[in-house]
Amino acid sequence: MTRWDDLSSDETAMLQTVFWSAGASRLALADRMACSKSKANSLVASLIDQGLLKETGLQGSTGGRRPETVHLSERLGVLIGADLGATSLEVAILRPDMGLLARHAETADVRAGPGVVLARVRVLMRELLTRCGATDKQVIGIGLGVPGPVDFESGQLVNPPLMPDWDSFSIRDYLREDYAAPVFVDNDVNLMALGELWRLQRSLQNFLVVKVGTGIGCGIVCHGEIYRGANGSAGDVGHICVDTEGQRCHCGNLGCVEAMAAGPAISRMATLAANGGQSAVLAACLRTNGAITPEDVAQAGRNGDAAANGIIQRSGSLIGQMLASVVNFFNPSHVFIGGGITRIGPLFLSSVRQSVYQRSLALSTRHLEIQYTPLAAQGGLVGAGVLAMQETLRRRGRVTA
Amino acid sequence: MTRWDDLSSDETAMLQTVFWSAGASRLALADRMACSKSKANSLVASLIDQGLLKETGLQGSTGGRRPETVHLSERLGVLIGADLGATSLEVAILRPDMGLLARHAETADVRAGPGVVLARVRVLMRELLTRCGATDKQVIGIGLGVPGPVDFESGQLVNPPLMPDWDSFSIRDYLREDYAAPVFVDNDVNLMALGELWRLQRSLQNFLVVKVGTGIGCGIVCHGEIYRGANGSAGDVGHICVDTEGQRCHCGNLGCVEAMAAGPAISRMATLAANGGQSAVLAACLRTNGAITPEDVAQAGRNGDAAANGIIQRSGSLIGQMLASVVNFFNPSHVFIGGGITRIGPLFLSSVRQSVYQRSLALSTRHLEIQYTPLAAQGGLVGAGVLAMQETLRRRGRVTA
Repeated sequence: MTRWDDLSSDETAMLQTVFWSAGASRLALADRMACSKSKANSLVASLIDQGLLKETGLQGSTGGRRPETVHLSERLGVLIGADLGATSLEVAILRPDMGLLARHAETADVRAGPGVVLARVRVLMRELLTRCGATDKQVIGIGLGVPGPVDFESGQLVNPPLMPDWDSFSIRDYLREDYAAPVFVDNDVNLMALGELWRLQRSLQNFLVVKVGTGIGCGIVCHGEIYRGANGSAGDVGHICVDTEGQRCHCGNLGCVEAMAAGPAISRMATLAANGGQSAVLAACLRTNGAITPEDVAQAGRNGDAAANGIIQRSGSLIGQMLASVVNFFNPSHVFIGGGITRIGPLFLSSVRQSVYQRSLALSTRHLEIQYTPLAAQGGLVGAGVLAMQETLRRRGRVTA
Repeated sequence: MTRWDDLSSDETAMLQTVFWSAGASRLALADRMACSKSKANSLVASLIDQGLLKETGLQGSTGGRRPETVHLSERLGVLIGADLGATSLEVAILRPDMGLLARHAETADVRAGPGVVLARVRVLMRELLTRCGATDKQVIGIGLGVPGPVDFESGQLVNPPLMPDWDSFSIRDYLREDYAAPVFVDNDVNLMALGELWRLQRSLQNFLVVKVGTGIGCGIVCHGEIYRGANGSAGDVGHICVDTEGQRCHCGNLGCVEAMAAGPAISRMATLAANGGQSAVLAACLRTNGAITPEDVAQAGRNGDAAANGIIQRSGSLIGQMLASVVNFFNPSHVFIGGGITRIGPLFLSSVRQSVYQRSLALSTRHLEIQYTPLAAQGGLVGAGVLAMQETLRRRGRVTA
């Protein structure tokens, strides 16, 4: 196995640089580490000898000799990523370069409490490892996303509104029984932001990732790092008010954007439209299934149902109104929107954009890009893998420094 | 004069550490620089020899020997700070430890354009230098705050709504004719935040400074640094919507907090109250002066006028409603409120607090402190001085590194 403990701090720094470069030439690595090419060469050579880095062969038949690119070696070990949503869970085994080796997703109810949910996560981790032919001892780090505010140092949830039974529960201690590898926990949307930051190789320094599903949350990248705030609750945008006389939210206030525009609000508006005779399609759906999901609204919208499209536009517009405040305050270069609701279609995104551009200042939006998250449905798992790899390397860096 | 160009990068780093410590023992300096005590001792000794640092004598007659504290020496030179508001300007000469040597404030109209306003600033700089017995050559850095968004690298205003004639004007080139020292320009509320960050010796990492005057702006400290956003417009909270059917703002949107709650809105509400027979005091003020200022409203409020107090509460409550959104998003540890309107009294602050605590999530506000800015009316000038000193040292650090 990997001789982690023999690594110098320079070697650990090189592994971190390679990880964040997602494949780079020695020259590019020297540049990113701000060291000489000869030093980078000798670090890479030593790490290849130790089996921690590998290089791809000469590429490119288009003429000219392209430099070899250096990658993390699969001989480092594997990572486990898990992404717990309010109503779903996903577990994956990843290579050190974030390639997915195995993955499983299923519905779950996070309110069932940590005992039930984590027992299932533990079984899935074991099954997926077996499927990859990997052992416990090959696991070098575990990353876990949860749908609530997390105290990052302790890895514990703090006052999570959707999952009260998890308050102060130590996920880290629970998984420590199975694995020697370190366990890191963060809020799910922070992990989506971390995944995008890695995908971008930190080329953007200040951007937001907004997740719209059962609730609404926001991951913040500030000065090239995830920003968690004074108590770990930064990005809790679901309770920003968009209508002082709007719907009452479970938090007790009126007109929170989450209560007005997230998944349950879309279902509620659709049920009203069905019962109010505004949409035969939605009414038929309600009769057949007893409920209308956001996916049903999306389907009706794609088929040209005016009421469904009105609901999608209203949701996008309210979320855009909330984002306009956030954009005025934070002036990000990009806002990436992800989560289940994004599958509702392009009309949603255009409504968000229209609302933001109308309400934000010209200067804040001059170069602002609003897009769906490029990692899409993989964002949470990749983010969990990046967390595991980054924090494991950081910890090794401290140990050996 | 100071032999800046002979400084080693370690010596420059020590000067920066002393500056941000505002007087510290050698032991504390070693700790903050993460170097050995002997290295810190030798750097301090060398810099004292060069006349760039000084130490205070033994303090404390309460028994026990207190360690000497090390400060920046006045032999380094002087700094010039200037703070341009929408309706005022202030210029000061400061010592390297931010002690005020001379200061002048007067009313001004920033809309008169850079030619008129900066000509006056230039005259005041010269007069104040003379008053201190200092020369051009002793000026080591100049810091300037302006009431609009600034591109920090170029030092130019970008699309400033209050001062269109200043768009892309180079304040730096204008002052370069008079002084060899570098000139740094930033948004006025960023400078207030920088001043508070210096006063706190960076002991708080994530906080906001909100300025309420003619407009409303916000300085953001994130990970211990001023955060300016992708285009330099971060903190532009004045156009966050607090009432979708509210007053029309000069930006074209309805219900911007600036249009509803800043100085001119307070005067407008007071005029309505006076004309509507709700306040004999405000009506008398309007008859006598032809207009009602926020100070008049404050005075009436202190004398128990119910209408005036209602206006103050409404303004505080709307600003608190905007801050609730910002606090949910950013989860700062502290919000400091400054600017002219803060002189309106304690009722204003309590209304802001009540509105934030009511609308923000419990976790975001669990340890949140909302206070008036500790530096109060000195904030802008101290911030301008800190900008000048910090950036001058940083630039020297680059030159000598």
